[in-house]
Amino acid sequence: MAQPNHDPITATADAGDVLGAYLRSQATAFLRGLRLHEESGADAAESGVAARSLRGAARRISGSLATFRVVTESSWADGLRTELVWLSSTLADEHAYAARLARLMDALHRLSGSPELPAPRGSAGALTVGSARAGALLDRQLTLARTRAHSATLQALGSSRFHAVADAVAVLASEVPLDAVAARGRVGEVLVPLAAVAETRLSAAVSALPPVGGCEAAPSPYDADHDGLWHEVRRLLRVHRYAREVLGEDVTRPAAAGEALDRHRDAAEAAAASATAARTPRIAPATAYALGVLHADQRHEVEAARAEFQHLWLREPAVTPR
Amino acid sequence: MAQPNHDPITATADAGDVLGAYLRSQATAFLRGLRLHEESGADAAESGVAARSLRGAARRISGSLATFRVVTESSWADGLRTELVWLSSTLADEHAYAARLARLMDALHRLSGSPELPAPRGSAGALTVGSARAGALLDRQLTLARTRAHSATLQALGSSRFHAVADAVAVLASEVPLDAVAARGRVGEVLVPLAAVAETRLSAAVSALPPVGGCEAAPSPYDADHDGLWHEVRRLLRVHRYAREVLGEDVTRPAAAGEALDRHRDAAEAAAASATAARTPRIAPATAYALGVLHADQRHEVEAARAEFQHLWLREPAVTPR
Repeated sequence: MAQPNHDPITATADAGDVLGAYLRSQATAFLRGLRLHEESGADAAESGVAARSLRGAARRISGSLATFRVVTESSWADGLRTELVWLSSTLADEHAYAARLARLMDALHRLSGSPELPAPRGSAGALTVGSARAGALLDRQLTLARTRAHSATLQALGSSRFHAVADAVAVLASEVPLDAVAARGRVGEVLVPLAAVAETRLSAAVSALPPVGGCEAAPSPYDADHDGLWHEVRRLLRVHRYAREVLGEDVTRPAAAGEALDRHRDAAEAAAASATAARTPRIAPATAYALGVLHADQRHEVEAARAEFQHLWLREPAVTPR
Repeated sequence: MAQPNHDPITATADAGDVLGAYLRSQATAFLRGLRLHEESGADAAESGVAARSLRGAARRISGSLATFRVVTESSWADGLRTELVWLSSTLADEHAYAARLARLMDALHRLSGSPELPAPRGSAGALTVGSARAGALLDRQLTLARTRAHSATLQALGSSRFHAVADAVAVLASEVPLDAVAARGRVGEVLVPLAAVAETRLSAAVSALPPVGGCEAAPSPYDADHDGLWHEVRRLLRVHRYAREVLGEDVTRPAAAGEALDRHRDAAEAAAASATAARTPRIAPATAYALGVLHADQRHEVEAARAEFQHLWLREPAVTPR
């Protein structure tokens, strides 16, 4: 993934120059990721790295086009943004299923250390039965989903829709379609206020989050009703982070807080996958029990990630005053 | 339960006078609780209060006999202590099963609010099925255990062993068998050093506890291996608290920390009861799944109670310097 440029940008520079340089560098990163992906062939690890780099560049381009829309040719920006969102979400699925399976297997392994986990008739050997069966069931279901996602990715990358996106990004790498008037404005008068709008949107979404229990309050961590509010904060935090990258500002804090929200999303989806697996007809009670423990465990990870985000994002108001 | 006397006790008072006064007041409380229990008849609430008061006095007498053993006639003290420990643990069982069932029902009720809890085939109505069946199973098992404990209590209270204990406590209410030499020593030279030994034992047990995860560290809350270490700290904290009561010292902090350890014990036993219920042959997968969620939930309550104890007991070293 292309690393953002952290050199300070003067407020008197031209808005178009600064935004253009960022978009061109991300477009170049996108094309590099694409070439790497084509060359990786059947090497799963290399292909994964390439897909990750492609996704990162696609998200940065679409995110900055959203924030700084009026500085660009808006109808062009809207069209490209839609296509990049489609592409990065398609590319994300395969990795997400693999990561979810790995997370659930790690958790099962950790939980199996317990003498109180499913041991029908109290026999020590039976402990492993429920966990092992739950693991096998999850492996079957998530591997199937990942295989389907892999096919969908291959299909997407071979589609004319994808080739049109790649062509548009190739053009972007050399020339960014800008709004003639807005692009001539100064960074401090054009880009900074637009970035502030993105930050305000984020702050409002954070303020609207329901309170996090923490360790001591009575928890109700199984309530997935609020997950959507958190996922939206995750999306807005990314947009905010990319806007800071455009301005050459430090992104350490949004990046760290974003990682907590990535863990939040991963744990919430892992919990849902465990609940889904438990609905498989005709599974053994020991399997269902292990899936129940796993579900609760992942919902507690959701709670821990929320607390960590609050800690990272709200306890250091000096860095980004709100 | 008789409230401890918080009046400051002068270090120059006679050790025997101070210990004797405490033991006599607890013996009186014991006899009052016994009378209340006999009069309560079939009134479950009144009988519960009486049993609680009996248990509290029995624990206080046996705890202070342990700490200040050398100030009393030791062989008498050892004998009575053994009998009081037997009695208070017998009396505790019935209440413990009732409290465990109430705790698990509360948790099931709380957890059932989740849209991700057991819903085979995704139907909304089925959500309640797993939780309701798990609740019915736990109710059946714990009510049976409570009924057995009730019979055991009635049998114990009618036994000659119990009447011998009651007689010994009745003697204690008027005359405490003391060691002639040690009892004439000053409080500051006899009781205070013995209380310090009890506190040192507690501190050593607390230091030996494995680190608590807290919210942010990677938790392995399903590992019940360490429960015993925590239960031992709970026991030693009580002994320490009763020693402070004998000396007329403030017990606010050990009492609060003790409540956290009570919750720890209750949650650990509730988790074990859920795991036991899941081993019932021929239960439905949805029931097993709900029991798995319940088990994990109670193990997380165990972790929360540990964190709370650490917070209450270790973060305020000014009150009890160590």
